[in-house]
Amino acid sequence: MAAYTRAVPHEGTVAHVPTCDAALSTAFQLLGKRWNGVILGTLVSGPAGFSDIRRALGGISDSVLSERLSELAAAGLVERKVAPGPPVGVSYELAPPGRALAPVLQQLIEWARTHLR
Amino acid sequence: MAAYTRAVPHEGTVAHVPTCDAALSTAFQLLGKRWNGVILGTLVSGPAGFSDIRRALGGISDSVLSERLSELAAAGLVERKVAPGPPVGVSYELAPPGRALAPVLQQLIEWARTHLR
Repeated sequence: MAAYTRAVPHEGTVAHVPTCDAALSTAFQLLGKRWNGVILGTLVSGPAGFSDIRRALGGISDSVLSERLSELAAAGLVERKVAPGPPVGVSYELAPPGRALAPVLQQLIEWARTHLR
Repeated sequence: MAAYTRAVPHEGTVAHVPTCDAALSTAFQLLGKRWNGVILGTLVSGPAGFSDIRRALGGISDSVLSERLSELAAAGLVERKVAPGPPVGVSYELAPPGRALAPVLQQLIEWARTHLR
């Protein structure tokens, strides 16, 4: 880590001015919202139906999962596909921006396995 | 995406059983909590004092920042350093597990700049 100086009394300060990246903030607002990140993680392996996603997550209600899938679709990360019936089959899959996130999620999984208790 | 079959009436189902990775879930429980991810992002560039972090984030209260830094320290991602005074200088920096997360955060930033509206 860089050396730091203490220029301001009563607080350790540093030679640089720390900043918060706006894109990172936007990413965590979306992905950090309860369930959103793991919903995307669940879809990395391929399309899945509503009940399959709910079972994979465990503990999420129908209404919350429905709301989250709509939010992820509105953000362009997930696509809802309807296969013509009968019976009508609805499935959810990652849209291209969601698929582009897959390697980042994989890195995050590897980091968590190594470093989180 | 993989082709999928519809084996269960009234729902699109897939040839695989989707699963939710436990490590990803743990990671998002910690990093997804409001402010935690961006606090780590702010510390990627080096150690920072409490007020510097608060300024960089904008809109976070002292008590919440204090609580979040303690939580990240308890998880082993952040270290609190006290430089001998007077005046005493307190700074926060990434511990090795937090530094290991830096390239993942950078990838997340690049993804968000490209794909998030």
